[in-house]
Amino acid sequence: MTTTPAPTIGIDVGGTKVLGVAVDATGEVVAEHREVTPQGGEAVLAAMVATVERLRAAVPGVAALGAGMPGLVDRAGVLRVAPNLPGVFDLPVASLLEAATGLPVRADNDATCALWGEHELGAARGADDALLLTLGTGIGGGILVDGQLARGANGFAGELGHMVVVAGGIPCPCGRQGCWERYASGTGLARLGREAAGRPDGARLRALAGGAAELVRGEHVTAAAEAGDPAARAVVAEFAGWFALGMANLVAILDVDTCLLGGGLVEAGATLLEPVRAEVARRIIGAGHRPPVAVLPAVLGEHAGAVGAAHLAREVLPG
Amino acid sequence: MTTTPAPTIGIDVGGTKVLGVAVDATGEVVAEHREVTPQGGEAVLAAMVATVERLRAAVPGVAALGAGMPGLVDRAGVLRVAPNLPGVFDLPVASLLEAATGLPVRADNDATCALWGEHELGAARGADDALLLTLGTGIGGGILVDGQLARGANGFAGELGHMVVVAGGIPCPCGRQGCWERYASGTGLARLGREAAGRPDGARLRALAGGAAELVRGEHVTAAAEAGDPAARAVVAEFAGWFALGMANLVAILDVDTCLLGGGLVEAGATLLEPVRAEVARRIIGAGHRPPVAVLPAVLGEHAGAVGAAHLAREVLPG
Repeated sequence: MTTTPAPTIGIDVGGTKVLGVAVDATGEVVAEHREVTPQGGEAVLAAMVATVERLRAAVPGVAALGAGMPGLVDRAGVLRVAPNLPGVFDLPVASLLEAATGLPVRADNDATCALWGEHELGAARGADDALLLTLGTGIGGGILVDGQLARGANGFAGELGHMVVVAGGIPCPCGRQGCWERYASGTGLARLGREAAGRPDGARLRALAGGAAELVRGEHVTAAAEAGDPAARAVVAEFAGWFALGMANLVAILDVDTCLLGGGLVEAGATLLEPVRAEVARRIIGAGHRPPVAVLPAVLGEHAGAVGAAHLAREVLPG
Repeated sequence: MTTTPAPTIGIDVGGTKVLGVAVDATGEVVAEHREVTPQGGEAVLAAMVATVERLRAAVPGVAALGAGMPGLVDRAGVLRVAPNLPGVFDLPVASLLEAATGLPVRADNDATCALWGEHELGAARGADDALLLTLGTGIGGGILVDGQLARGANGFAGELGHMVVVAGGIPCPCGRQGCWERYASGTGLARLGREAAGRPDGARLRALAGGAAELVRGEHVTAAAEAGDPAARAVVAEFAGWFALGMANLVAILDVDTCLLGGGLVEAGATLLEPVRAEVARRIIGAGHRPPVAVLPAVLGEHAGAVGAAHLAREVLPG
């Protein structure tokens, strides 16, 4: 830590893009650069290094680097498992980036970085006990406990999507059955939508998907619900129930008072958020004895992870 | 905090007894006193005050008081809900005890106190990310994150037993369905035991319960399993699976590397612990990428809560 922070860089590696930002001493983003995510660990690292070089050319005096990676990142900064980066595992991100850039590096999980970004500059400012849930293919998670990011013994905390909520339920690629993300992610919404589209009253959903129930995606469901289609509204209500079931579990465990939602689904806005809020309020344990839990959209969008990584990089600043 | 801690008192209030200890400057227990838990909030407080007076008479110089209460204790030290103390709710434990004793008081959940006791003097020494699970009528929980107790926004963190693991499952007194403690507590083991005792091969279980399947309790199951009864062993195996399912959820969320088990069931020792450990090892996500999670019996027994409360009281010492 230092009292007059120098600029830092944060890079968020996703399944499709590598997004880097430079953040100045006041915490604001002053430069940004993006690359397409290439295949393979070496190529991903090369894209990250190229991003650092571009940003350093634009912003002099960069003193540290943060990296948000999509997967399990251990406390030494090694990306152990990355489901959305085929063939990438046991990649020592922090040490390789330190060698390539000469900067001190902090590597962490992408959702953890995104939560820190929202805590520093976004919708979680002022919250001490909060979650960030990214609803996409799965459910990514970041956890804030008493103002500090929860990392866990190995750095793997926050695998919230793999909380089993239906013992013996739908098989998950992780090898277990009934994981929450089978029901309450974008994938889960699409599955519920496909089921509804195959029923007689699912005509509107089928039409949005080009006539084929099996092609229904989450955004078809939210668009049809927005337009007032009863079948789509029923799907959203069912989805909200699944989301709230897991969310209530996390409130029972962690007693968070703030939950940020990120990911593509959140662009549906009130169509999704209002039913979700109502179900969360209904299902939380001890609702009469605690203030309501705020369920809010994340506001930094695709920048949250990179901004959070840049802010986390301050923790490895020398002196 | 102070560099030369004075003696402190810790009191653990359970459904049946009020247990107090005095802990000296070195952290060791130097006196103890117990009372039967009376009915009603005023009487409970009177028993706590009487316990403090007895311990102060035995140990001069007591400087602070910690109280572990069975229920949701908010950050101001108010016991909001106490399922095992009929008629007690919204009891301002900390402020009433401060007024009655003149000592600074720290009140917290009993399982949270017990985890802190095990962290300071027991089986969780050296652990930074750990759980304590008390398997009794329900499942009580304490959570340690990065060396700090997790309390949550309202002080209500650790309601681990009310994590739903079977959507639409067995109804729980909390109003939800399929809570983990319906399956993996002492109550859950007894239910599985009663089911097994009603089947043809359940003769031994029935005999231990005096011939009536509906009277089977958890200790009948563990005793019969210990003696090699196949039906009882099958019940223990099923119980271990339920326990490990929720435990794997908590590891996915929090990445703990240590889990302490407390409560009466744990007295069954290896009969229960070995199947539990095997199932936990089998079900944890990313098992190949992380060290095994240590599942250990709590060692302070009935004293854990009081000892932890006495140690937590040091946080409110003046100076």
